[in-house]
Amino acid sequence: MADQYAQSGEDGRPTEIPAIRWDEPPEGPVLVLLDQTRLPAEEVELVCTDASALVDAIRSLAVRGAPLLGIAGAYGVALAAARGFDVDEAAVALAGARPTAVNLSVGVRRAQAAHRDAVAKGGDPEQAAGAALAAARRLHREDAEASARMAAHGLALLDELLPGGGHRILTHCNTGALVSGGEGTAFAVALAAHRDGRLRRLWVDETRPLLQGARLTAYEAARNGMAYTLLTDNAAGSLFAAGEVDAVLIGADRIAADGSVANKVGSYPLAVLARYHHVPFIVVAPVTTVDPDTPDGASIEVEQRPGFEVTEITSPQVTVSGAGGGIPVAPLGTQAYNPAFDVTPPELVTAIVTEEGAVSPVTAEALAELCDRSRQVTI
Amino acid sequence: MADQYAQSGEDGRPTEIPAIRWDEPPEGPVLVLLDQTRLPAEEVELVCTDASALVDAIRSLAVRGAPLLGIAGAYGVALAAARGFDVDEAAVALAGARPTAVNLSVGVRRAQAAHRDAVAKGGDPEQAAGAALAAARRLHREDAEASARMAAHGLALLDELLPGGGHRILTHCNTGALVSGGEGTAFAVALAAHRDGRLRRLWVDETRPLLQGARLTAYEAARNGMAYTLLTDNAAGSLFAAGEVDAVLIGADRIAADGSVANKVGSYPLAVLARYHHVPFIVVAPVTTVDPDTPDGASIEVEQRPGFEVTEITSPQVTVSGAGGGIPVAPLGTQAYNPAFDVTPPELVTAIVTEEGAVSPVTAEALAELCDRSRQVTI
Repeated sequence: MADQYAQSGEDGRPTEIPAIRWDEPPEGPVLVLLDQTRLPAEEVELVCTDASALVDAIRSLAVRGAPLLGIAGAYGVALAAARGFDVDEAAVALAGARPTAVNLSVGVRRAQAAHRDAVAKGGDPEQAAGAALAAARRLHREDAEASARMAAHGLALLDELLPGGGHRILTHCNTGALVSGGEGTAFAVALAAHRDGRLRRLWVDETRPLLQGARLTAYEAARNGMAYTLLTDNAAGSLFAAGEVDAVLIGADRIAADGSVANKVGSYPLAVLARYHHVPFIVVAPVTTVDPDTPDGASIEVEQRPGFEVTEITSPQVTVSGAGGGIPVAPLGTQAYNPAFDVTPPELVTAIVTEEGAVSPVTAEALAELCDRSRQVTI
Repeated sequence: MADQYAQSGEDGRPTEIPAIRWDEPPEGPVLVLLDQTRLPAEEVELVCTDASALVDAIRSLAVRGAPLLGIAGAYGVALAAARGFDVDEAAVALAGARPTAVNLSVGVRRAQAAHRDAVAKGGDPEQAAGAALAAARRLHREDAEASARMAAHGLALLDELLPGGGHRILTHCNTGALVSGGEGTAFAVALAAHRDGRLRRLWVDETRPLLQGARLTAYEAARNGMAYTLLTDNAAGSLFAAGEVDAVLIGADRIAADGSVANKVGSYPLAVLARYHHVPFIVVAPVTTVDPDTPDGASIEVEQRPGFEVTEITSPQVTVSGAGGGIPVAPLGTQAYNPAFDVTPPELVTAIVTEEGAVSPVTAEALAELCDRSRQVTI
């Protein structure tokens, strides 16, 4: 079950709401999400009292972004445990809510494993639920720390690649505080450059069909006082041609063992444009995004989303007549091709920046070594 | 002055309305446009009684598309003449209504020259107005004929480039009967392939920000019973990567003497993707689109359109609060980069198909020869 309430300060300006938080009101534990489908028009919290409400929130993209999905998945397992539901059933539902981001199932498994271990060690249900929650909180905290380290590594890499300065960065989709326990992935690097006085411009792709760039990245850039400009995804070509892009920074939803990067649809065309224009194309993602069980790009399952996201314009402010509750922009009965992600092969990726450092050139060997190093650190 | 009225058949299904027509009701001559901003939701005619109403219609994109703009410009001059307005003043206003499509000023100049010649030969105002109208009608008819010839040349070229068949064609923006006195440019080639039973799929880019692909090309494809699928512009990359595109067919708003092609923003990224994937990138446009006075791509003036086209979603069905009368999708105060066109250099263009035949490879010499040949035919 989910409830919604809007939060705003006394001056009418929205207050800062975290993307996700665990709360324990007298009625019992809940997971509170900032409903990202309502941004930037309004900051509304969505309160999930069980895992199935969270599954709905994940599917509707009220909560989204690879690292945050991992955190949400872990908290979802903790919520099921705390509320006395079947934990393994909840874990299956949560892990299957969306197929592409590997972080979701990684997060779910971590909380589930902590719960199972506690039970195996003779813990009672309350202790086991506590173990799951502790695992979720740990993942949340680790992700925040990983953000800060990715930002530092990313900024260092930019300095190396662009010794003359001139940080005009193009980004796609949303990769900031809204997707993370910290300040995000690619966006966190741009934000670090901004704080350092070196960001000349953040070019923000609007990111059709759901406009996460326009709605979310522009919102985060505005909040942070960054110099940013919004553009339609197809206008990026003109920027490259005009020499206005110094680097592309994007996140990732899954990185295969060979270095193929699944990310929001529209990333691959940017990679091709970047290569054609000799501009660095940099992927920023926590090590958990690397999936050793996915050998290559062809093995990544790409989520196909409903056609009405393309054939209708949806907005929380408008309910009209279309099947998806939006404004129809194409003739009735129009079929749409709507993959949520695309896959960029490693040869088009200049570097993958993680909290453990950057990999460049991107090879299976270098990635495997990075994952090994990370495992030694975290276990 | 402009009036609007909706037209539909007795069964409620819209009737076929031409994109443009000259009419002479008892109140005096008018130019009647199919208002393209209202498609596909409704077929509404916009009646212009003077050139300034037509300028407004051109600026708001109620009438659009390079060849049709030329026809509209010529009729606009004829309208000013028939209504007794200053013809040269109207010509200046019309030619300057939008800067990139060269056809607009070409059409205006043709009607203006006919008017001037008639006056110089001692014709009275009525005779001069008649001469301007005759010139507009001639351009209209010629454009219809050019469409048919472009379609035939384009289909022959496709057969040559794709000997194994498999016409899965990706197109951008709208280039059909809505932009032409006939069946259009790039779309007319796809339609010819469809009629010949050879079109396997028309991939329709939605074409942000104004969604001419979703609203207009899908509408024309549906009307013609073509197999078509709509996609966001940024999903084209996935189609190329999956080997689902056999050729790209687009129109043009201006072709410089060196073969650089200005067309709807998003064309250039498709050209880069097509090159990367070894897919033919074909431009279909009448010879009037070639502008010998524009030496190269850098000399083409690219129209910058208002940012609210990107920061707000506009729809004739919805009026909300934004500065552009649409639904805001980005934070208030967001700056947008919104070029209406981009420029593709000749080295990325496989062929330019005109009514006089195809040019491939695209060189300044071959284009100049084509223009010479065309001039010998039309004068």
